[in-house]
Amino acid sequence: MPASKRDHTVLFTPGPTEVAPDILREMGRPIIGHRGIEMQDLIRDLVPRLRGLFGTRGYDVFLTACSATGLWEAALRNCVTRRVLVPVCGAFSERFYEVAVACGLEADPLHVEWGKAVRAQAVADLLATGRYDAIALVHNETSTGVVNPLPEIAEAVRRQSDVLLLVDAVSSLGGIPVEVDRNDIDVCLASVQKCLALPPGFSVCAVSPRALERSARRVGKGYYFDFIRLKSCFDRSTPMATPSVSHMFALRAQMKRIETEGLDARYARHRAMADLTRAWAAGRLGLFAEERARSNTVTCVANTRGIDVARFVAGLVARGFGISNGYGRLKEATFRVGHMGDHTVEEIRDLLAAMDEVLKEMAA
Amino acid sequence: MPASKRDHTVLFTPGPTEVAPDILREMGRPIIGHRGIEMQDLIRDLVPRLRGLFGTRGYDVFLTACSATGLWEAALRNCVTRRVLVPVCGAFSERFYEVAVACGLEADPLHVEWGKAVRAQAVADLLATGRYDAIALVHNETSTGVVNPLPEIAEAVRRQSDVLLLVDAVSSLGGIPVEVDRNDIDVCLASVQKCLALPPGFSVCAVSPRALERSARRVGKGYYFDFIRLKSCFDRSTPMATPSVSHMFALRAQMKRIETEGLDARYARHRAMADLTRAWAAGRLGLFAEERARSNTVTCVANTRGIDVARFVAGLVARGFGISNGYGRLKEATFRVGHMGDHTVEEIRDLLAAMDEVLKEMAA
Repeated sequence: MPASKRDHTVLFTPGPTEVAPDILREMGRPIIGHRGIEMQDLIRDLVPRLRGLFGTRGYDVFLTACSATGLWEAALRNCVTRRVLVPVCGAFSERFYEVAVACGLEADPLHVEWGKAVRAQAVADLLATGRYDAIALVHNETSTGVVNPLPEIAEAVRRQSDVLLLVDAVSSLGGIPVEVDRNDIDVCLASVQKCLALPPGFSVCAVSPRALERSARRVGKGYYFDFIRLKSCFDRSTPMATPSVSHMFALRAQMKRIETEGLDARYARHRAMADLTRAWAAGRLGLFAEERARSNTVTCVANTRGIDVARFVAGLVARGFGISNGYGRLKEATFRVGHMGDHTVEEIRDLLAAMDEVLKEMAA
Repeated sequence: MPASKRDHTVLFTPGPTEVAPDILREMGRPIIGHRGIEMQDLIRDLVPRLRGLFGTRGYDVFLTACSATGLWEAALRNCVTRRVLVPVCGAFSERFYEVAVACGLEADPLHVEWGKAVRAQAVADLLATGRYDAIALVHNETSTGVVNPLPEIAEAVRRQSDVLLLVDAVSSLGGIPVEVDRNDIDVCLASVQKCLALPPGFSVCAVSPRALERSARRVGKGYYFDFIRLKSCFDRSTPMATPSVSHMFALRAQMKRIETEGLDARYARHRAMADLTRAWAAGRLGLFAEERARSNTVTCVANTRGIDVARFVAGLVARGFGISNGYGRLKEATFRVGHMGDHTVEEIRDLLAAMDEVLKEMAA
C-alpha cells in the first residue's frame, strides 16, 4: 500500500521508522513464560540470526529490554578501565560522551565539526598517546546524516593492542554494512527501531571475547548491563532479567524477512533510497553532511533557502508522511529524512513527491 | 472465554501473567514518533493515572524501557550514599541485595527464613545503629508467596529521618495496596507483567522529592537510570531515552480498565482469588508462606506430599494452564500459582479444578 494511503502518519523519521503490519501483529501475540522451553527456543533461534546480521561468527550476542542509551552505558561500564576517547560529530555522539562522564569514567571528546566525518588519522594520533583503553564511536550519526569511515577507524584502533572498539551501530545495523568480525569491533550495539524497523524500546549487542575479559575485571559496573551476567544467562539460552517478549517475537519475524531479502540486497536498497533522497535535496536545498560521508540510512537536508521547517514538516504530516526537523541546535537549519528499514524506493519517491508539493505550497 | 478454551497456554504464572486480547492489540498499534506531540499527550495521560495507581499525589513518576531489575539499580545508584540494608526473604530480595553489591555499594542483608515475613522490629533495630541511609525492601516476595508488612516497616523506617525507603512493588502494584504517600515510600518501582497484566519488558516508578535531592548529590550514578535526567525530561512530558511506545499504548488502555474496575474492587478480587487458591492448597498440600504473611497475588504451595512438580506443571500445560514450579532452591519443594492482573475468580476455579484433575491423574 502506498504510504499516502495508510490510515496513520507513516514514519520516514530517522528512527523510529515505519513498522510493517505483520511485524506489528507479532507484537500482539500472547505472552509466553520467559523461564520455559519456548523462550529458550526463541533465543536459540534469534542469536545465530543476529550473529549473521552483525557479521560475526563467534561473538556473544545479547538482547536487552532497554533503548540503546542503556547499551551505551553497558559498553562503557564493562569496557573502560582507564580512559575512553569519544569522537563527537553530532548530538548522539555528544551524548555517548556525556554517558561516559555520567558513569564517572575518564573520558575525552574528539570534537569534529558537525556535518563532517571523524578522520581515522585524528583517532590514530590520539590513541598513539597511550592514554586510552577504549574508543566509543558512533558509526552513523543520526543527527547530521554522517556515516563515519568505520573500516579506516577500526584499522587505526587495531594498531593499539589494548584499545577496545565500542561501536554504536544504532542507525546503521541492517542498513549499512557494520561487519563486526572484519572490523574487529569489541562491542557493537544497536536499537531496533531504525534499520530493523521494529517498535522502539529494545536493543541488541555483539560482544567480543576481549570485551568480556575486560568486563570480568571491572568492579562496580552494576547488574542490569553486566556482560558477564548476560553471558552466563545467554550461554543457557535464557534471558538475564525479564525480557520484552513481544519485541523478541517481532524480531524473530523481522530477522526472517531480512534473511529472505538478503543483507547485500538490503544494503543496496538503502543506498538506492539514499541516492534518490540526496538527489532531491541537492537539486532543491542542500546536504548537510560532507560529500564523502553521506549516510545511506538518513539524509540531513541543509535548509539553504531558509524555509519554515516546522511548517514544512506539518505540511507533510497533513499528507500522511512523518519526517523530522533538525536535531537540537540544527532544528531549523536542517531537516531529516529516514530512508531505512522496510521502506522501498517507491515509497521514497512518494515521499519526495509530497515534499515537492509542500515546498510549492509554501512558496505560493 | 474460559482459560481452558483459549488457543494458547493461559498464564497463571506469578508473572508474566495472562494479557487480555484487547491489551495485546494495543501492542500492535502503528508507532508514533517519540519526540512529537502525540508522545507528550500519551505521557500527560499516563502520569496522573500512574500516580493514582501508586497512591501518590505529587511524586514524580517515570516510565522506563527496562525490566524492574533495571529499576533496582536505579533506586540503589540514585539513593544510597552510605550503606543500604536489604531484608532478604526469598530469591528476588536476595537479588536486590546482589544488585547493590554489583553496583559497588555498601550493603548488608537482613536474612529472614524463606516463607517468613520481614519483621518491622528487626528492621527498626538495625536502622537504629545509624549505619544505613537507605533500606531496599521487596514488598511481595514472588518466590515464596510472602507479602511483607509494608506499613509497619515503613513506620520503623520513618523513625530514622535520613533513611530512604526503596520499595520493590513488582508483584504487588495493582493487586495489593502499596500506598506510596501513606507509607512515605521514597522510591516505589514495579514492572508491568504482574498485576498490571501487560507484556513484560517495561517498568514504572514513583520517586519522592527526598530521593531526588539525594540523587542530585550522587556522582557516577550513570545516565540511563539517573532520576535527575528522567525528571528533567518527564517535567516536559518527554521520554528521556527511546521509549517502548507499544508498552505505553498498552499501559494507557490498561490504566483505563483498572480505573473502571476501581482499585478497591481490584484489591478485593485479588484477595478473593487468593482465598480460593489458599483453601485449595491447605486442603490438599500445604502453604509455604507463614499464615499472617500470605500474598494475595501469588500462592506458593508447599509440596508436602512429594509430588513430581515438573510432571504436575506439564499436566496443567497439557490442559492449557501455565503455572510455575518453585523458584531456585524451592523448585521441587513448592509450586506457585499467580492469581493476579486480569484473572477472575471463575478462571481461578477453572484452574483449581484442572489442578485437581492432574493430581488425580498422577495418583492413578
